[in-house]
Amino acid sequence: MNLKNILILAVALTHPPSTFALWPIPRSLQTGTSFVKLASNFDIENQVTNAPADLLDAIQRTKTLLATDKLQRLAVGRGLNDSTAVGKAQSLSRLTISLLPGHTVARSIAQEAVQPIGQRSEGYSLSVPSTGAAATLTANSTLGLFRGLTTFGQLWYDLGGTTYSFQAPVVITNDSPAYPYRGLMLDTARNFFTVSDIKRTLDAMSWVKMSMFHWHVTDSQSFPLEIPNFPEISSKGAYSTQQVYSSADVQDIVSYAGARGIDVLVEIDTPGHSGSISASHPEHIACPQSDPWSDFAGEPPSGQLRLASQATTNFTANFISAIAKTLPSKLFSTGGDEINTNCYAHDASTQADLKSSGRTLEQALNVFTQATHKALLDIGKTPVVWEEMALEHQVSLSNETIVMVWISSQNAAAVAKKNLRIVHGPSDYFYLDCGAGEWLGNDPTGNSWCDPFKTWQKAYTFDPLANITAQQAPLVLGGQQLLWTEQSSPENLDSIVWPRAASSAEVFWTGAVLPDGTARNVGSALPRLHDIRYRMVKRGVRAIALQPEWCAIRPNVCNA
Amino acid sequence: MNLKNILILAVALTHPPSTFALWPIPRSLQTGTSFVKLASNFDIENQVTNAPADLLDAIQRTKTLLATDKLQRLAVGRGLNDSTAVGKAQSLSRLTISLLPGHTVARSIAQEAVQPIGQRSEGYSLSVPSTGAAATLTANSTLGLFRGLTTFGQLWYDLGGTTYSFQAPVVITNDSPAYPYRGLMLDTARNFFTVSDIKRTLDAMSWVKMSMFHWHVTDSQSFPLEIPNFPEISSKGAYSTQQVYSSADVQDIVSYAGARGIDVLVEIDTPGHSGSISASHPEHIACPQSDPWSDFAGEPPSGQLRLASQATTNFTANFISAIAKTLPSKLFSTGGDEINTNCYAHDASTQADLKSSGRTLEQALNVFTQATHKALLDIGKTPVVWEEMALEHQVSLSNETIVMVWISSQNAAAVAKKNLRIVHGPSDYFYLDCGAGEWLGNDPTGNSWCDPFKTWQKAYTFDPLANITAQQAPLVLGGQQLLWTEQSSPENLDSIVWPRAASSAEVFWTGAVLPDGTARNVGSALPRLHDIRYRMVKRGVRAIALQPEWCAIRPNVCNA
Repeated sequence: MNLKNILILAVALTHPPSTFALWPIPRSLQTGTSFVKLASNFDIENQVTNAPADLLDAIQRTKTLLATDKLQRLAVGRGLNDSTAVGKAQSLSRLTISLLPGHTVARSIAQEAVQPIGQRSEGYSLSVPSTGAAATLTANSTLGLFRGLTTFGQLWYDLGGTTYSFQAPVVITNDSPAYPYRGLMLDTARNFFTVSDIKRTLDAMSWVKMSMFHWHVTDSQSFPLEIPNFPEISSKGAYSTQQVYSSADVQDIVSYAGARGIDVLVEIDTPGHSGSISASHPEHIACPQSDPWSDFAGEPPSGQLRLASQATTNFTANFISAIAKTLPSKLFSTGGDEINTNCYAHDASTQADLKSSGRTLEQALNVFTQATHKALLDIGKTPVVWEEMALEHQVSLSNETIVMVWISSQNAAAVAKKNLRIVHGPSDYFYLDCGAGEWLGNDPTGNSWCDPFKTWQKAYTFDPLANITAQQAPLVLGGQQLLWTEQSSPENLDSIVWPRAASSAEVFWTGAVLPDGTARNVGSALPRLHDIRYRMVKRGVRAIALQPEWCAIRPNVCNA
Repeated sequence: MNLKNILILAVALTHPPSTFALWPIPRSLQTGTSFVKLASNFDIENQVTNAPADLLDAIQRTKTLLATDKLQRLAVGRGLNDSTAVGKAQSLSRLTISLLPGHTVARSIAQEAVQPIGQRSEGYSLSVPSTGAAATLTANSTLGLFRGLTTFGQLWYDLGGTTYSFQAPVVITNDSPAYPYRGLMLDTARNFFTVSDIKRTLDAMSWVKMSMFHWHVTDSQSFPLEIPNFPEISSKGAYSTQQVYSSADVQDIVSYAGARGIDVLVEIDTPGHSGSISASHPEHIACPQSDPWSDFAGEPPSGQLRLASQATTNFTANFISAIAKTLPSKLFSTGGDEINTNCYAHDASTQADLKSSGRTLEQALNVFTQATHKALLDIGKTPVVWEEMALEHQVSLSNETIVMVWISSQNAAAVAKKNLRIVHGPSDYFYLDCGAGEWLGNDPTGNSWCDPFKTWQKAYTFDPLANITAQQAPLVLGGQQLLWTEQSSPENLDSIVWPRAASSAEVFWTGAVLPDGTARNVGSALPRLHDIRYRMVKRGVRAIALQPEWCAIRPNVCNA
């Protein structure tokens, strides 16, 4: 044995040659060292009485993925060393899925996915014996069964047409998420994305058990959302008539998401970030496309709803209500970020309204927000807002309001002090768009405002409870990574999002502690993240390489 | 007229509503203000006697793109405001293409593309009248005609099925590149790219008149290049047998490139970055996959050719010769970067060879390099090396050697002082991989070694003659942007390269001065770069958005 072999052996002994690659890793997980393979007649047997269609569809999709993933193990030889063990392995002929006793009335996955946040039943138990005896998946709800099917679909590798797993028996008991809100935000206003792009994103989200699609659908650049009774807003405010999500598209997206365990949180940002409404309703917009834009908005173009106008307030409450009531989600975001006061200072109409009502701008904002939130509360929806509404303005928010922290991770504590529920989306950890340079023109040396690039590692180290007391902890609903699309389009959607956005999916599902009792850490995460990335590619999502393939098939050998 | 309209008008007056979007912009360009449209029977008439097949193919491809691009103008309304003018426009029925008198013997585009660098004939003249009279394209060579066809293909927009141009007459006289080397480097060793990925990249390169594809085909991670008489190197050193460029693939790629005016510069990096050869020839590799890798190489895995061994030297010269002689290019790179001396210090075999020959490591490196370069010179090839071979080692390089600057743009001056020819590829301007975070494992906070992200703007501001005297200027052959693929794969190839890499294509074609006599600048570049990006997307290359579409259709309105 020469020096080279000694070194390789040393690496092999200190680092297991491959990893059981579940993402997010279950909170409870026991594995063995046996191989098991899928029988040629393998089937998933549904034992749920009156199973909803979306559960049956999910079973069918899982069976399809088992046949089509054809992912080879990320190990030197890509599984060839498993040949003997696979040949001798027992054959698994069945996975049975059933609801636990007392849970026989099956709501659809989509119905479960839109239960009030915090009341969703996502837990499941899964057992995959090594003996060839049937695997079993149980849960209290169809949503839990769906999460379990997702886990089951990640257990398998391909070797010359045989689908096998190598750490049987697998026993997962009551795996359920640490936080109910595990999301991704996509901005479809700065650049447009097709329904197909969104569905592909929802698929990938479901593969890592994300629960929330935060759809920042409109902004000052464009208004691509058709709203019932307000068709002019999108027909005039979208980039083109082809770049509009019709009501049918919205229902299609919402249904597709629901069937994948994902609740769609639609945001129509108000009163700022609404300049695109000026194309149809100039009477409701202050400072549309003003010059220089930097005096009137955070980015071009400017334009804000005339919050002090009763007519504008009614208009806003009405279109919010009109769209929200078509959506199954209990949540709806009215935005509320980056309100530019100079815009209103220079808007004669707003100044007149303030004068006649005797209100300050802040008081008018409170009235405006109360009205839009009342429109939501009246139809049983919970308002969601950006952090400024809680921290920078004098707005009375109902206790149920959910606040999204974005400016800095440091700001979550202040929201908690106000006893409001929190979704973490801080730009210093979770902004997928940072670090790709200045997008504003005529700036030869500029970098992005939120440099540097937010790596998957940075996101993975996020602590949802930093500076939060134990008493406040229940306020933390979870968090999400976000893609603002100044420099993104369908062309780089997959590559800028995946696999990075899987980081927060594990942060908020698994929590701080891995199933073996150790702390969550990037070292043990990387091999598993490689695995889900390669699996995503097999499934048609263009997730990027995290390392040279040489490293991907040699866990921990390419460490810093 | 209200304030809003006044502001919009002001913007319209100070910023032309759209731009004549050629990329790279010709060095000579006169345009008018008339519209002209393609007649329904528009044709490109070849007047070249005995035209080579690749010219005829290029004509056919151009005609196809004219029919399929269907790019709408990047202006508010996407060309709808042009309706009247387009309706009244004269119809162009013909583009005639011909060689200038005295240039009747037509070599193929591919043959012209591999002429010695600096002796290529890429110039062309193009005239597109507004009267409906035939457009004319002339050049001294088929390569020049190809460049002119590329320009012609960028002149046209679609409005409801009519293909039109709006700044006729267009007169371009003797447009030819400021520098002959306008390249892109792709690393296919860290992660593998398919032949299809490479061809798509070559297409996009040709659209911006790039002339060189620097193919960093092998490295220590993998050796995906089949070499005649040395099939074992790739069959054992590639990631898999499916991840090898066969000899047929190589010829396919080279032909495809040549037909698009692109010379393929193949690099086999030696004596460093060659660890993958150890799989087939352990006798020739020092310190393969040694641990810790950081003691033996810049990145994992380590492994270098035993440069002091006569057998290894012969082996290396032989396989370099074996592959180089199958390639039409006059250029071949032997690499030469990042040689790790500690690897050799710990290699008993190398130490014995040094001792027996009485040479220092530097002397042995010189002998090794002389041998590999002689193998190239013997078959009429010009050696290309990384800058360390000229600046850090005591190696005698022939005067014809081309040196690639990569460590810093500051190092070009030192290469010029040695009177060696220069290709600019500095990491501080042109590395496309920088800024996406640390790829090494187990480093929660690391950024990339060459942070920040190199924006298109940064690349665009590059000065090829900085710190170069007028006398040295002829040594500067041009430059290239480079993609090292630790974190890249087919999934993000287009999005990480395009449209950024178009920056240097214009830097090295157009030079320092725009056709209107002003200095090249990012302000006037952006609208044109948007245009070529949208056109690339139409042609199937997933080039990313540079700004919100709102900004893309309003040139200069979204400036910083």
